[in-house]
Amino acid sequence: MPSYTAPTKDMQFVLHDLLKVTETGIPGYDELEADFTSAVLEEAGKITSEVLAPLNPVGDTEGCTFENGVVRTPTGFKAAFEQVKEGGWPGLDCDPEYGGQGMPYILGTAVGELFSAANQAFTMYQGLTHGAYSAIHAHGTDAQKAKYLPRMVSCDWTGTMNLTEPHCGTDLGLMRTRAEPQGDGSYRITGQKIFISAGDHDMAENIIHLVLARIPGGPDGIKGVSLFIVPKFLVNDDGSLGGRNAVSVGKIEEKMGIHGNATCVMNYDGATGYLLGTEHKGMRAMFTMMNEARLGVGMQGLAQAEIAYQNALAYAKDRLQGRDVTGAKNPDGPADPIIVHPDIRRNLMDQKSFAEGARAFLLWGAMLIDQSHRSQDADALGLISLLTPVIKGFLTDKGLEMTVQAQQVYGGHGYIEEWGMSQYVRDARITQIYEGANGVQALDLVGRKLAQDGGKHVMAFFEMVKGFCKDNAGIEGMAEFTEPLKKASKDLQAAGIYFMQHGMKNPNHALAGSYDFMHLFGHVCVGLIWAQMAKAAKDALASGASDGVFYETKLATGRYYMARQLPATALHLSRIETGADTVMALTTDQF
Amino acid sequence: MPSYTAPTKDMQFVLHDLLKVTETGIPGYDELEADFTSAVLEEAGKITSEVLAPLNPVGDTEGCTFENGVVRTPTGFKAAFEQVKEGGWPGLDCDPEYGGQGMPYILGTAVGELFSAANQAFTMYQGLTHGAYSAIHAHGTDAQKAKYLPRMVSCDWTGTMNLTEPHCGTDLGLMRTRAEPQGDGSYRITGQKIFISAGDHDMAENIIHLVLARIPGGPDGIKGVSLFIVPKFLVNDDGSLGGRNAVSVGKIEEKMGIHGNATCVMNYDGATGYLLGTEHKGMRAMFTMMNEARLGVGMQGLAQAEIAYQNALAYAKDRLQGRDVTGAKNPDGPADPIIVHPDIRRNLMDQKSFAEGARAFLLWGAMLIDQSHRSQDADALGLISLLTPVIKGFLTDKGLEMTVQAQQVYGGHGYIEEWGMSQYVRDARITQIYEGANGVQALDLVGRKLAQDGGKHVMAFFEMVKGFCKDNAGIEGMAEFTEPLKKASKDLQAAGIYFMQHGMKNPNHALAGSYDFMHLFGHVCVGLIWAQMAKAAKDALASGASDGVFYETKLATGRYYMARQLPATALHLSRIETGADTVMALTTDQF
Repeated sequence: MPSYTAPTKDMQFVLHDLLKVTETGIPGYDELEADFTSAVLEEAGKITSEVLAPLNPVGDTEGCTFENGVVRTPTGFKAAFEQVKEGGWPGLDCDPEYGGQGMPYILGTAVGELFSAANQAFTMYQGLTHGAYSAIHAHGTDAQKAKYLPRMVSCDWTGTMNLTEPHCGTDLGLMRTRAEPQGDGSYRITGQKIFISAGDHDMAENIIHLVLARIPGGPDGIKGVSLFIVPKFLVNDDGSLGGRNAVSVGKIEEKMGIHGNATCVMNYDGATGYLLGTEHKGMRAMFTMMNEARLGVGMQGLAQAEIAYQNALAYAKDRLQGRDVTGAKNPDGPADPIIVHPDIRRNLMDQKSFAEGARAFLLWGAMLIDQSHRSQDADALGLISLLTPVIKGFLTDKGLEMTVQAQQVYGGHGYIEEWGMSQYVRDARITQIYEGANGVQALDLVGRKLAQDGGKHVMAFFEMVKGFCKDNAGIEGMAEFTEPLKKASKDLQAAGIYFMQHGMKNPNHALAGSYDFMHLFGHVCVGLIWAQMAKAAKDALASGASDGVFYETKLATGRYYMARQLPATALHLSRIETGADTVMALTTDQF
Repeated sequence: MPSYTAPTKDMQFVLHDLLKVTETGIPGYDELEADFTSAVLEEAGKITSEVLAPLNPVGDTEGCTFENGVVRTPTGFKAAFEQVKEGGWPGLDCDPEYGGQGMPYILGTAVGELFSAANQAFTMYQGLTHGAYSAIHAHGTDAQKAKYLPRMVSCDWTGTMNLTEPHCGTDLGLMRTRAEPQGDGSYRITGQKIFISAGDHDMAENIIHLVLARIPGGPDGIKGVSLFIVPKFLVNDDGSLGGRNAVSVGKIEEKMGIHGNATCVMNYDGATGYLLGTEHKGMRAMFTMMNEARLGVGMQGLAQAEIAYQNALAYAKDRLQGRDVTGAKNPDGPADPIIVHPDIRRNLMDQKSFAEGARAFLLWGAMLIDQSHRSQDADALGLISLLTPVIKGFLTDKGLEMTVQAQQVYGGHGYIEEWGMSQYVRDARITQIYEGANGVQALDLVGRKLAQDGGKHVMAFFEMVKGFCKDNAGIEGMAEFTEPLKKASKDLQAAGIYFMQHGMKNPNHALAGSYDFMHLFGHVCVGLIWAQMAKAAKDALASGASDGVFYETKLATGRYYMARQLPATALHLSRIETGADTVMALTTDQF
């Protein structure tokens, strides 16, 4: 049976050895002492390993059901949700004014990885609520915040995000859902939304839907879209629940994975809604929380890779098959454990070096978000805006790849549902699609983010890499990190230069390379963070850290990434430099 | 709803423009005139599009059931199986002496792609039967052949292959199933086999299980394994069915995909079996048909990529979202079809250039098998033995990757089961695992095949590439094919040299690079075949072929592969040349 152990030690390393969070000066980070974060992570590790992970296959097998208009979650979900609420986990990084614990986002992200790894479908109920909370927190009136936020922070009420319609997903300018003003400040919302995660269920008293819709008479296209609060049950001024709103579930979807989360078709039939933020500025309101939402999806990709890796590793140590060609390692047994075989090692090292590198990259990203919010640091905001599509696209693409590799370690047993490896692959697959498909992330990166603020942020990134290499290349044993990093960074710069030189004449020369650029950038980021981790590990060893093996392992894992993964940058560059010619050579009819 | 159209035109191009089958002098190939193969492929296209493809989602949704010891296939499978039998499809390339049509294996492979694409789970029932037929045909006595083959050729009886046991898959030397001689020439077979595809079902009168088992007193390990015929119903000497044999289904597995095929746990409780071939030479008997079986799995990988591509393409032409950045292509509509976007093009071109290249590579491989069998050509046998693990491993890895990319074109709709894209991914996934997991293919390639016959076959392959480049580099427009091919082939040679220089000292230096080598080799093969197809297309254009657009499209698609895919060889080489050091750096405990 699949199992899960929270990688708390590795998280502590990232928070304290690598990012040195308490020394950053970011408001609130002084609370993140090692003992404290350790206690939080251990506690989160307990509930995720003991409660959520065992429910993961249950959710996958049973799925949600929809009968007589009622959506039911799988056996055990409701009780577990109560436990999660009692632990105060949903409000960990929420505003204390509304009952949250006010912890930095970085801690919420670390805990979020544990929850997502143990049970992605389950964790989405609170994840979507957090997204809706953030939107209301950022754009709501004081009255709206007072009315909705305390119950959402506690997850007594959950939330959803309603963007997609049957004929539009990426291109939301085509949206048709209407919002007609009623004269009393409220609107009547009419239309159909699809793919609404956690759209309905039996675990909360109320569900607060955030719905994008068009107010008649507004501008065409994306500039005429507004955001509305549409509660499942109307909320009276005293906070008690009123009548049922005219919103209902049309059906729940049969999906490849995340079966434990109800993906709903939502029908709004003149439902009462309340404007959130400004008329026609709905997309802007959504975008203010896009960095967090997309970073959260990148985190899911990493999380599935992590749990899949843990189980692949356990199997590789346990399964006896064949002999080590350099001499039997289990001579008294019928065969050696398959972890002795170099190709199994390669597979496991791919996974391990990805998971650890991605985790550090992600937590660094979360720190930049804290820095931008808590320290009003515009440069940090610019940098995380640039890195967000990379985190989302690269970590989820690699996340799927790694779950597939983990499944492969099991051979035929990996294909059988009872071993659980199939679920990780199927659940990870959605992360490449939702919250903006990865092709859209690549477009966002190359079409918008690269040139943002005159290219200031990408230049700052290059300076950061250059500075790190310059400062550390001379340190013994660091050249095997800084040299490949320099090479990879040069590939990234060359790609940027190619886009500048050719994208002006024909934007397709840039767009045809956008996906490769996203991966190239991802590798450079993870390469940079591995080089930084190597330095942190060396420092710890030099200062006589007690757990020397941990730091030596960290160094060896980093060396693997630099030797075996980072060189992919050259391939991506070579593709980018072929431009759009072969990509766009065919007419539509020639396909 | 997903649909399927047989790519008969492309197959005709491969058979007649590229391979020029009727000019090869291979016995039986004179029958493969263009009109004839076209008629066969069109007819196969009809039954696969009209009968098998519509059943594909039915099989996926319903799956097989197991109740009271009886396995039932999904609704419609039995009737469709009757239609397939009536069409004589299972015996297409079987021996006429037993009722087959005696067609070359290459034609069986082309038709096999159509069947597998339309319905992989369904087609496996006849595919496994074909494998068992081949084993009995190659190793059976005249009496055995007369008794079993005619009904297997017609698929009145189906067949299975029983290798895996709970504790052994790759390492069959650990096998425990026993075969005790009964003194009357028969054996009592006792043991449990798992993952038996088509192990039981309701579509055939009898099932002929081929079972690997150990005769007591024989050598230990893999050298003491023999192969047995174990019929579900014993067969009387007059060919009528006798009593039920002591073989039963323990359970059927819940799997990630191929739900329409019953994957069974088979219990042999003193079942009557008959030795096939020689005592203790069971593995050798299995290996004589390994090339075909593995090529057949590579074909499945390609087939899923093809049907996924067809549906992704249809969606990309239909779905309106966003605008072409270089100017609207559907100005009167609300948006442009997504095929205008460069990143969607990149995605589709990856798929198209893979499917067409893989098809040609596969049919060339099938021709080598015919050449080795029908012309007793030892060099052809040596070459296809070398290429078999490449075909199996590379085509199935890329096959999965391409189905994932096809699914991605659909965005959220790809994740919903109703659109059918998820099934292609889930079905394709098994091809990387069964018939020898892809890591085992890489091991076979590097550990055995490279050095076979003193490395003669790999040298012949290099000569073939070199010769082609030399003969064609000077032809106008061919340099853009021969130059990248030369470069890629040089990478492959460099990898081989690395293995020779370092693998001697420590075999792990070769094995740690085996997986990358398999992919490197796959790219060179597909690159070679694309260069050859380019030449064939140029020749056709030069000779004034009527369908010029088809050949121009072929050239443009080939250019894409050379520019965007083939350069992956450099990355694989760079990984290989890092050897085993970083791969094997950790002790087991350090993981």
